[in-house]
Amino acid sequence: MKHRLSPAVLAEFLGTAMLLCAVIGSGIMAERLSGGNVAIALLANTLVTMFALYVLIETLGPVSGAHFNPLVTLVLAARGSFAPADRKLAVAAFIGAQLLGAVAGAWLAHLMFELPLLQWSSKLRAGPGQWLAEAVATAGLVLVILRAPAGKGAALVACYIGAAYWFTASTSFANPAAVLGRMMSDSFAGIAPASAIGFVAAQAAGAVVGVLAAAGLQPSNP
Amino acid sequence: MKHRLSPAVLAEFLGTAMLLCAVIGSGIMAERLSGGNVAIALLANTLVTMFALYVLIETLGPVSGAHFNPLVTLVLAARGSFAPADRKLAVAAFIGAQLLGAVAGAWLAHLMFELPLLQWSSKLRAGPGQWLAEAVATAGLVLVILRAPAGKGAALVACYIGAAYWFTASTSFANPAAVLGRMMSDSFAGIAPASAIGFVAAQAAGAVVGVLAAAGLQPSNP
Amino acid sequence: MKHRLSPAVLAEFLGTAMLLCAVIGSGIMAERLSGGNVAIALLANTLVTMFALYVLIETLGPVSGAHFNPLVTLVLAARGSFAPADRKLAVAAFIGAQLLGAVAGAWLAHLMFELPLLQWSSKLRAGPGQWLAEAVATAGLVLVILRAPAGKGAALVACYIGAAYWFTASTSFANPAAVLGRMMSDSFAGIAPASAIGFVAAQAAGAVVGVLAAAGLQPSNP
Amino acid sequence: MKHRLSPAVLAEFLGTAMLLCAVIGSGIMAERLSGGNVAIALLANTLVTMFALYVLIETLGPVSGAHFNPLVTLVLAARGSFAPADRKLAVAAFIGAQLLGAVAGAWLAHLMFELPLLQWSSKLRAGPGQWLAEAVATAGLVLVILRAPAGKGAALVACYIGAAYWFTASTSFANPAAVLGRMMSDSFAGIAPASAIGFVAAQAAGAVVGVLAAAGLQPSNP
Repeated sequence: MKHRLSPAVLAEFLGTAMLLCAVIGSGIMAERLSGGNVAIALLANTLVTMFALYVLIETLGPVSGAHFNPLVTLVLAARGSFAPADRKLAVAAFIGAQLLGAVAGAWLAHLMFELPLLQWSSKLRAGPGQWLAEAVATAGLVLVILRAPAGKGAALVACYIGAAYWFTASTSFANPAAVLGRMMSDSFAGIAPASAIGFVAAQAAGAVVGVLAAAGLQPSNP
Repeated sequence: MKHRLSPAVLAEFLGTAMLLCAVIGSGIMAERLSGGNVAIALLANTLVTMFALYVLIETLGPVSGAHFNPLVTLVLAARGSFAPADRKLAVAAFIGAQLLGAVAGAWLAHLMFELPLLQWSSKLRAGPGQWLAEAVATAGLVLVILRAPAGKGAALVACYIGAAYWFTASTSFANPAAVLGRMMSDSFAGIAPASAIGFVAAQAAGAVVGVLAAAGLQPSNP
Repeated sequence: MKHRLSPAVLAEFLGTAMLLCAVIGSGIMAERLSGGNVAIALLANTLVTMFALYVLIETLGPVSGAHFNPLVTLVLAARGSFAPADRKLAVAAFIGAQLLGAVAGAWLAHLMFELPLLQWSSKLRAGPGQWLAEAVATAGLVLVILRAPAGKGAALVACYIGAAYWFTASTSFANPAAVLGRMMSDSFAGIAPASAIGFVAAQAAGAVVGVLAAAGLQPSNP
Repeated sequence: MKHRLSPAVLAEFLGTAMLLCAVIGSGIMAERLSGGNVAIALLANTLVTMFALYVLIETLGPVSGAHFNPLVTLVLAARGSFAPADRKLAVAAFIGAQLLGAVAGAWLAHLMFELPLLQWSSKLRAGPGQWLAEAVATAGLVLVILRAPAGKGAALVACYIGAAYWFTASTSFANPAAVLGRMMSDSFAGIAPASAIGFVAAQAAGAVVGVLAAAGLQPSNP
């Protein structure tokens, strides 16, 4: 199986790297150019994240499904998206590639903007409002993925995240790999390591809520 | 019938809740970040509303038709979108779910942003210009819904509302459920309870105009 | 024929009215909210014009072809878009509806924003750069319309005009009906009556260039 | 062959000219209107470039493939996009048309904004971060072009470039013809001639990386 798995694992690594590079890089660029106008900076950061998601899902989706997110991989694995024979290995490889990719993406952004490679964010993001926001953001993301009509997943995920950057109080990380990458960048998009565990726990709870909501929207069978 | 109705009613509740949460939440975020630059705040609020509408209509449309708006439900009911046998019950259930959803969405935004749950807006919105604007906004919305080519309704409704946020003097509520939800939030997107009745009356009049305009655009039968 | 023509003429009237209402209304809203930041005002004005064009072309295109522009009507008439029997009458009716619609749209915006109904713009727009810009803008518009693949005209015209608002020095009127409507609004989107004739002449020249460029891109027949 | 080649060469000339005119013209407009707010200026410049790319690729793609970029022409020629008989001639004609078009587009923008026709940019863009950024930008562009699903190339290239304007430290030129055109404009989008060679070399290296990445994502044949 290995020779067939590897392009998919490469796609998850590359896609998560480019996603985090886009999120972090555009945050750095926006902060430099916006002269303290945070609304403009977040608007640019939002649009760039959407464009990157759309491009990455359309171009890498046919290779790996374009998860770029450990919770999405787990939800889809639970619903049978991987062949039973190598499910555990594939899930582990996907999540490993996503986590490595997130770090690589943060580092690539730092290299391009000539910043120190290794950084840790000092931006604390915590409290009940933030945690609720991450749960809501992730529930919505899972619901959108599970309910997207065929061929529209890329546009819908991009638009959903674009909206959630603003309507959730946390600017919608909704992805443990994104938490890892952003933790390692002391810039606009960063999150302090101390805040990471709360975000990931809230995201996991939200993913469960998303799965339940999707079930509730299925027509009941008589 | 009840077991088949309930996913649709849940979709109307969830969809209207997420729509109002997006409108109100992004308004709060935009106001906090924009430093008094109202044009930037409305621009962010506009784009988020569009992205949310597009996602909600695409993902929930197959379940309930994605009305999220009592006037849309009434217009479509009058045109035969519900089975005659349970039309009255379905219309009542849809409108009830939309109104409850609107309140739930406002409250979810308040919880995420750690604001008092129960609020009443103090933003007066009244006068002939505002009422004409709501009538125009709703007439246009009904016309777009009735004339949207198959498969394009979500993009067209999102783009229409995005435009109407700016070209109508009222920023285009165009939805009595939105009036209810926004009435209960003393934030950027709010409307004072005293102004609600005028908006809803203007919207109802606009819906009638929209139905008439759609009829005028039909080819005449010889 | 008359009973078949009238929905198309109504569509040209309604569409041109809503287009000018969107252009002028969003200009007024943007100017009020932007606190002198003209770049933000033009950005909002641009996006609203694009959304309105997309919605109007998709919803009214099946009725009338969604010209909303006398030069587009003339170019398409010359290429045989109207039945020969009533071509002259149809062209006259279309152009009349567009011109009346443009004025009606300006007035509707003024009514909503509680401004005097009858106004004349005082914004002079003239000089070789402006005229060249209008010729380029209209040539591009005609070329896009003549070369748009089936089903993509609405998105392409919207994106073209969105780009041309910024890359032409004149913000791309590209439409004699738009000149008339904007002439009658002393607001962000206005043009002084004294500048109108230069713009319309440049647009007509540009339309000819667009037709020639489209011909040059056709494969030659051996 | 000449009579069949010429519409394609005209399309490459016209498309590259309009692309550079859009990039440079919108940069001039944005700089004039933004009052020193560079984030707003780059946001407008970004959106206009995206809209222009989308329109040009959709309308001219059927004529020439809509390369508008010598590196794209070379990559596609290496993959067999040209008939072997006249490959060298066609590649030379395409690249010549792109370079002439880039200069013509810069000059057209200068004429519309009533600026001196012949200019040289004084904006130095150099250093390891900038060069890495150009390599990343071009690798991504080549990867997107090689992996775009049928019918989605225009939207994907536009979204990719829109994202890369912000997440690369160089604002993503990713095109030697764009370097030439921008070199000849002392405005927002310009690049000093002294910086051109570094950008083009980095772009060429990036194109090779993009081709290799695309190969790595292909399923292996047993």
